[in-house]
Amino acid sequence: MNEVLRRDAETIVRQAIAAVTPAAAVERALKDCVFPGNVYLVSAGKAAWKMAETAERVLGDRLTSGVVVTKYGHVEHPIPSLVCYEGGHPVPDEAGVAGTQAALELTRELKKEDTVLFLLSGGGSALFEKPLIPLEELKDITGQMLAKGCDIVEINTVRKRLSAVKGGRFAQWCAPAAVRTIVLSDVLGDPPDMIASGPTVPDQSTCAQALEVAERYHLRLSDPARECLNRETPKALPDTETRIIGSVREVCAAAAEICRNMGYDPLLLTDQLCCEAGDAGSFLASILKTHAADGRKRAFLAGGETVVHLSPGSGLGGRNQEMALAAARGIAGIANVALVCAGTDGTDGPTDAAGGYADGSTLSELSMKGISCQAMLENHDAYHALDAVGGLIRTGPTGTNVNDIAIALIG
Amino acid sequence: MNEVLRRDAETIVRQAIAAVTPAAAVERALKDCVFPGNVYLVSAGKAAWKMAETAERVLGDRLTSGVVVTKYGHVEHPIPSLVCYEGGHPVPDEAGVAGTQAALELTRELKKEDTVLFLLSGGGSALFEKPLIPLEELKDITGQMLAKGCDIVEINTVRKRLSAVKGGRFAQWCAPAAVRTIVLSDVLGDPPDMIASGPTVPDQSTCAQALEVAERYHLRLSDPARECLNRETPKALPDTETRIIGSVREVCAAAAEICRNMGYDPLLLTDQLCCEAGDAGSFLASILKTHAADGRKRAFLAGGETVVHLSPGSGLGGRNQEMALAAARGIAGIANVALVCAGTDGTDGPTDAAGGYADGSTLSELSMKGISCQAMLENHDAYHALDAVGGLIRTGPTGTNVNDIAIALIG
Repeated sequence: MNEVLRRDAETIVRQAIAAVTPAAAVERALKDCVFPGNVYLVSAGKAAWKMAETAERVLGDRLTSGVVVTKYGHVEHPIPSLVCYEGGHPVPDEAGVAGTQAALELTRELKKEDTVLFLLSGGGSALFEKPLIPLEELKDITGQMLAKGCDIVEINTVRKRLSAVKGGRFAQWCAPAAVRTIVLSDVLGDPPDMIASGPTVPDQSTCAQALEVAERYHLRLSDPARECLNRETPKALPDTETRIIGSVREVCAAAAEICRNMGYDPLLLTDQLCCEAGDAGSFLASILKTHAADGRKRAFLAGGETVVHLSPGSGLGGRNQEMALAAARGIAGIANVALVCAGTDGTDGPTDAAGGYADGSTLSELSMKGISCQAMLENHDAYHALDAVGGLIRTGPTGTNVNDIAIALIG
Repeated sequence: MNEVLRRDAETIVRQAIAAVTPAAAVERALKDCVFPGNVYLVSAGKAAWKMAETAERVLGDRLTSGVVVTKYGHVEHPIPSLVCYEGGHPVPDEAGVAGTQAALELTRELKKEDTVLFLLSGGGSALFEKPLIPLEELKDITGQMLAKGCDIVEINTVRKRLSAVKGGRFAQWCAPAAVRTIVLSDVLGDPPDMIASGPTVPDQSTCAQALEVAERYHLRLSDPARECLNRETPKALPDTETRIIGSVREVCAAAAEICRNMGYDPLLLTDQLCCEAGDAGSFLASILKTHAADGRKRAFLAGGETVVHLSPGSGLGGRNQEMALAAARGIAGIANVALVCAGTDGTDGPTDAAGGYADGSTLSELSMKGISCQAMLENHDAYHALDAVGGLIRTGPTGTNVNDIAIALIG
């Protein structure tokens, strides 16, 4: 193993993840904010408590009051000047609706100089919800759409209209106050109106489209529900701003900066990787092979989320470990290159590892232990292969989830 | 379709291929050569005649005499001062052996100031051969090794020792004359001793390895053949130089230069691409998506040879067409990006196209014609999909074969 590359790879991964924890990302986003009037905080999602705690710490006296709606068990302790609610996820329940109602009360009849600071994270779709129809009917309609194979765009087009807060309606409610939304994103490519169905983002979809979905899939709807589909969502929202933080783009930027500080010239290939894990590993290995002898320290970065189409196999692993192991074949024998791949949440597949590391000596080290790289790949058993040669990256849970990052290093 | 990108993509592919035709590449390689004494030309392989014709034209009076050994039907007309032979390929025959014998006669007892200019192209392994055992036995031994699943390294280790010209022995024969080898390569990564079993390259393999292969696979060998395996190949060859021309690396370099001249900032990703075609297309699409809004014209280049693992499907296509079509999904809706992929030999799979082109409008244009990109990919029917939207690249046979090239353009 190339000990220098191994150590550098682990340092880059750990520091890049640390830069996009909810706390680090919220702190960075709020550092230079100026708010003219009162600031009301609404934080919803699985990371809502952590994000709100950081915001309260950063803003201090500038914060007037606020509401947090997060998943059961996610409130660690009370936060001064905020009221915390816990609710159901992934299936919304009345407790979550009550929290959302409290957020609506908090932001009722604001003035133009006031600001609503809206912090949104994964799970916000279920946790920040006030249906315009009984919750049970909302669940029934969602269930019908899932059962009939509707895609996520079709589901959102209907659901936005059944909600008092989705599809831009929360921002509409807060007007004329300014709405500043900070989104902790784990959605590839970051389309803001898809994240939690965009409570503060103008809606692109139309009533006509919603009705077409209802008709095409023969949805059973009550008269009030059908009426909702005819009520248009806001198409323009003055004085709203949305900022995406902690996205895969941000983790790539952080990793690039860390690489540069460590002497590796960074090049961002993509922050939207989405192909087969093994082939992504092979592609990155091809890049390393081509440039290994260029005579400069470099880092090629790829963020996103690969997939593993499981052919039969009984092994243990995850997409990041598989990607690293697949690259091991391509870079075998090249002393100065390595690939490290990790999930930013600290878990990769059903394993205790966050990802994998392979360098030019991985293949021969496996060989010496009598392990066939090819056989382990075919059996999707990257975990045991990498474990045998010190190639597992273990971070433990990181408290963030902004997809995966792969860094191909030339030392 | 983005007409500008479509036209630029086709221009880049055509000009890059033109830069690596045997004639263009040989001319470039010989332009600045200085030869002190007599120059004897030996040209072997499927492109031997074309390479020799160019060399004769460039060198003129500086050429003393020469021998060409190529495949049946590949001598287009006589060349002054050269004798042309045709022989069997891929199975060697006595006619090819006679041509090789003529090359050995030509280069017998040369002086130190003389030069042997050795031009080698694909097929040279069969066409440049003088076995040390009867040709029939050589074929039988090769057949045994293929049947028993020997890999190419094992086969070459044995065959070099059964030949008077392979494994560096031709250069040894030419000594003390200088040997200048120009290889027209279609082998990924260009290991010179693998190309036609390296007649002018010091051999890395050993007698012990050859005997081990014979034993492991229980090869039937005559006594003379067994004796051959015990005779060592040259491990050092003074005054020999090998230059690879027309390789995938050269076509990438040519394409990069052409891109630069057309205003696209080029970046070579790899010249050793070897993963699944569809996933390579997806990876390149991810790169395009990430950088489409950077505000500069760029070209990302990838050379090599992808593979298509055929799941059941009855469609028509090739790896380059499949790669382009797979990218179409990833870049859908982005107006200023495109991917073009082509085989430098002008053929891609069992089709009349060299490759494929897709841009941000390909997916919607397919849709408008009622064609599902996903279904066509699953059926490996990229040819008919791309044909419907003007996405086929047709060059006709190009006279060269240096793998494939893919160019991802941001306009």
